[in-house]
Amino acid sequence: MNLFYTDKLTAGLITLDEEESRHFNVLRLKEQDKVLVSDGKGNYAEGTAVKAGKKKVEIQIEEVRHSPKRKTYELTIAIAPTKHNERTEWFIEKAVEIGVDKIIFVNTKNTERNKINLDRYKKIARSAGKQSLTYHLPELSGLVKFESALNETATKEKYIALCNGDLHIRQIPVNKNSNYIFLVGPEGGFTQGEIDLAQKKGFKPILLSGKRLRTETAGIFISTALEIMLG
Amino acid sequence: MNLFYTDKLTAGLITLDEEESRHFNVLRLKEQDKVLVSDGKGNYAEGTAVKAGKKKVEIQIEEVRHSPKRKTYELTIAIAPTKHNERTEWFIEKAVEIGVDKIIFVNTKNTERNKINLDRYKKIARSAGKQSLTYHLPELSGLVKFESALNETATKEKYIALCNGDLHIRQIPVNKNSNYIFLVGPEGGFTQGEIDLAQKKGFKPILLSGKRLRTETAGIFISTALEIMLG
Repeated sequence: MNLFYTDKLTAGLITLDEEESRHFNVLRLKEQDKVLVSDGKGNYAEGTAVKAGKKKVEIQIEEVRHSPKRKTYELTIAIAPTKHNERTEWFIEKAVEIGVDKIIFVNTKNTERNKINLDRYKKIARSAGKQSLTYHLPELSGLVKFESALNETATKEKYIALCNGDLHIRQIPVNKNSNYIFLVGPEGGFTQGEIDLAQKKGFKPILLSGKRLRTETAGIFISTALEIMLG
Repeated sequence: MNLFYTDKLTAGLITLDEEESRHFNVLRLKEQDKVLVSDGKGNYAEGTAVKAGKKKVEIQIEEVRHSPKRKTYELTIAIAPTKHNERTEWFIEKAVEIGVDKIIFVNTKNTERNKINLDRYKKIARSAGKQSLTYHLPELSGLVKFESALNETATKEKYIALCNGDLHIRQIPVNKNSNYIFLVGPEGGFTQGEIDLAQKKGFKPILLSGKRLRTETAGIFISTALEIMLG
């Protein structure tokens, strides 16, 4: 059964947004067809298409259920958007497939992209979520200032990915119920001032690999590493 | 210093191939500039450009050195090329960055791509290798028949990635001196016949993640997992 996302999922009649309605039609679905609908926050329901307009599809929802997250840890990746936008989009797709709870796009000193299209990024996350049939989509936000990303005070395990970190990601505390944040810098890296500030705020420098990884690769590497170490 | 690759690296005068010579010029390098040259097999040398033609750059090499591999295990990924070629190209780039020793492109029953451009794939590997400044490029081969990929008899640890594998990749034997091969199927998956045949040849079914991963994501996931578990 095909999966669609909606911002608000309730029993009764719901309307898919324009993008999701278009996708419904691309799949050549019709009235009376059964579909799955999720809010991307763990809630999902089976529904029946009752009106299939080109830009407005209405679904009759019976019972909304909740699917708990498969994993118990929380992962936030605070990442600088890449110069070439497709690299960031690729990171989003892969992070959704592999698993991440929150992505914060961060404007650092050396970030070469000062504007992002968050709506487009959300579409990419939805599309990847459909592919992996997930009811849990990451929360996307940004662009925020570097300083704001450091104020994730509820997060216990804080790391900043550096090419010369002392601690290897393999060596971080493995706690399945903890929450983690990783800062990933832009192509030009973090400035010394940013590194100092992050350390002051409790972020520990961490090494991902003996090799130099691109920004988007570092993000995917972190998602996979935590899935292997804690999943 | 910029890194260039050559098939044969010896002391004395060497000529960069057309592609590498073009890249030399794109970087606006000139005669007398110092560069690094590697054969992608661990050998490297410092050299001086002595003739900088548009399609033919000559480098004077003094001493060829050998850089041992950072990791002691060997990883082969035998993967079906994806329907959309750019997904395979992304996989190659990321696998080079993260680390893989051999990539074999495999023609399976459900593979939707029966031809690959191995030269282009090698170019992508070189380009990713330059980015991560590596003297070790993976060996790329294919397209081979599925049955041929099963005859990697020198490989000790053999796995076939399946959505319903019993064994999780986290649970495989961790031996830093062993060599590993993972089979990764196309979008449509392996056929039951292929799975049976692989098992007969000693490949164990393995689960990568609780979520469904795309072909290229599975490949990147495996490279990262081994780097975390064995690196």
